[in-house]
Amino acid sequence: MAVRHYTLDFKLSAPADIPSTVRAVQCIFQEQEMTETIHDTEGHGYLATFIGKNGRFAVLRMHSHGLMTFDLQSCEGDDAAQVDNLLNALEKKMKTLCHGNIKQIKRLPALRRGDKVDRYWPTADGRLVEYDIDEVVYEEDSAYQNIKILHSRQFGNILILNGDVNLAESDLVYTQAIMGSGKESYAGKEVLILGGGDGGILCEVVKLKPKMITMVEIDQLVIDGCRKHMRKTCGNVLDNLKGDCYEVLVEDCVPVLKKFAQEGRTFDYVINDLTAVPISTAPEEGSPLFQTPTWEFLRLILDLSIKVLRPTGRYFTQGNCANLTEALRQYEELLGRLSCPVGFSKEVVCVPSYMELWVFYTVWKK
Amino acid sequence: MAVRHYTLDFKLSAPADIPSTVRAVQCIFQEQEMTETIHDTEGHGYLATFIGKNGRFAVLRMHSHGLMTFDLQSCEGDDAAQVDNLLNALEKKMKTLCHGNIKQIKRLPALRRGDKVDRYWPTADGRLVEYDIDEVVYEEDSAYQNIKILHSRQFGNILILNGDVNLAESDLVYTQAIMGSGKESYAGKEVLILGGGDGGILCEVVKLKPKMITMVEIDQLVIDGCRKHMRKTCGNVLDNLKGDCYEVLVEDCVPVLKKFAQEGRTFDYVINDLTAVPISTAPEEGSPLFQTPTWEFLRLILDLSIKVLRPTGRYFTQGNCANLTEALRQYEELLGRLSCPVGFSKEVVCVPSYMELWVFYTVWKK
Repeated sequence: MAVRHYTLDFKLSAPADIPSTVRAVQCIFQEQEMTETIHDTEGHGYLATFIGKNGRFAVLRMHSHGLMTFDLQSCEGDDAAQVDNLLNALEKKMKTLCHGNIKQIKRLPALRRGDKVDRYWPTADGRLVEYDIDEVVYEEDSAYQNIKILHSRQFGNILILNGDVNLAESDLVYTQAIMGSGKESYAGKEVLILGGGDGGILCEVVKLKPKMITMVEIDQLVIDGCRKHMRKTCGNVLDNLKGDCYEVLVEDCVPVLKKFAQEGRTFDYVINDLTAVPISTAPEEGSPLFQTPTWEFLRLILDLSIKVLRPTGRYFTQGNCANLTEALRQYEELLGRLSCPVGFSKEVVCVPSYMELWVFYTVWKK
Repeated sequence: MAVRHYTLDFKLSAPADIPSTVRAVQCIFQEQEMTETIHDTEGHGYLATFIGKNGRFAVLRMHSHGLMTFDLQSCEGDDAAQVDNLLNALEKKMKTLCHGNIKQIKRLPALRRGDKVDRYWPTADGRLVEYDIDEVVYEEDSAYQNIKILHSRQFGNILILNGDVNLAESDLVYTQAIMGSGKESYAGKEVLILGGGDGGILCEVVKLKPKMITMVEIDQLVIDGCRKHMRKTCGNVLDNLKGDCYEVLVEDCVPVLKKFAQEGRTFDYVINDLTAVPISTAPEEGSPLFQTPTWEFLRLILDLSIKVLRPTGRYFTQGNCANLTEALRQYEELLGRLSCPVGFSKEVVCVPSYMELWVFYTVWKK
């Protein structure tokens, strides 16, 4: 069962005469054999609902200040051409009735509600965007998160963790940005990747002949899904958890970082590709599956990462969408309050599947 | 007057018991003093509408196959926190009622209907996308088209012609792609730009020290708007219609192309930046403001452009969004049927403000 929800809105320069407009458009619904109910809005304009065959349902509202909104819900299996005709008839009638008085007509692509494949994955700054998704390729609930891999016609497969678009096969530019946008030399270097379960960073760094890459990803089910369905991103690097120059530890990165720090183990590059919302199991020893507040978690990861970073090293991370200026400001303030003083630079990047510009940070020890 | 339209949908694994679910959620609307009307859907599930204070209006629908949809329309000036509480209460109640039976809960960012500034500019492949637009910077109806320049927080100002997103100040990559993505040498060359009223191509080619650029843009009002409001795109090149190495003809390009072809005038580069839907005034001499069908127009422009292209020259154009594969196929077929045989290559580019991948073509004489 799925519903298509059509909207058709008219903005008028001057308020319309409600009774005559209503009379004129009513015949459209009568022709479609829709049953009308007029509601008492207690002075908030005209409101009528219409029930038609096949479960069709419409709402016609005339607000007092010259806005008329129309909603049409049509159930799966309904005659789409007939629905289109109804909308066309209403648009045509309104144009005739209010010619010269219409400032704007807005007919949006229909909302798809209750579809088997969900196409709406809002941006980080809260905007509604519809993706060209046609298939659920992989879906699992791990101990840490809901994991989806969905197929987009233009972006290829997209990894979505807890409802957040993480990475699509089209998004090499994300991986390049979080590796320093081609300005670094990884040859012979030691690299630590935090998270990165899609294998994108691992795959690209391996090509650059580093001495050793250690990747710490908490979620085996992310690795499993991406190894199978994100091969344009990860190539074959996830086929084995150990390669000539890399090792993947399927562990929570917090205790691993602490251990590295204690042992004095350091890296030339630390790449933090953790999800925005932390899923660490152990911010404090012994507390299982405890979620620290985001900012404390970010600070913990940053402090530990800087501890294991060589004096000449670079720490890379994705920040946030460009529009969340307050969150970006807070993050930069946090960078100024670390145990070890650091400098930083940032870059704004257009990641194809994100539908919004994204900020990446480079951090170094002062 | 503007309306926020909230949706909150529940997908259940098994159909819920409608009477008991309805009884359980009704109290939420009673608490909000909303007046209920139950509608006869003739066997298409349960449907109730609710009218509340301040013109608030809600629709609760329980479809027979385990989909429950909820709509809430709230008028400008309504208490947003109260509306949020209502949605939260419904979500919480449903979670309690149907725990374990809920497959998905979907709450989309509210649709903004009748707003002063329109944020919805669907993609070329027909998807609903909301932009972060906060201001109408420029709006004119010229003899040829509706011209809007809208401000986006992340993309800067965006030029929208007849409802199609044309170019934003963030979209240098569009200009680079339609100039051959940095693989061409423009120094000392003669260049013809068709359209391009935003000044982006002109501005970038001027920097490369060509011998002469001729730009033919039909719409003075596009030039006027962009000169003022798209300066990150056009710099100062539109301040004068003539510069050291360029000339802008404010004319329909079809007769100009015909004249050039007759005179035997040729160019090293022809860059076709015309809008997808043609607005030529004169496909045939003497027929004012006549719109030829798109494909015929495209063929006309292509044939004339190839005529004025030097044997070693390059013709660049934007094609279409990557998802409109049938339109792209037809265009490529058209390239095979020109008066003069041509070869072509294409490139898929992510233009930030487009929210979809875009195809660009390079065409040359065989």
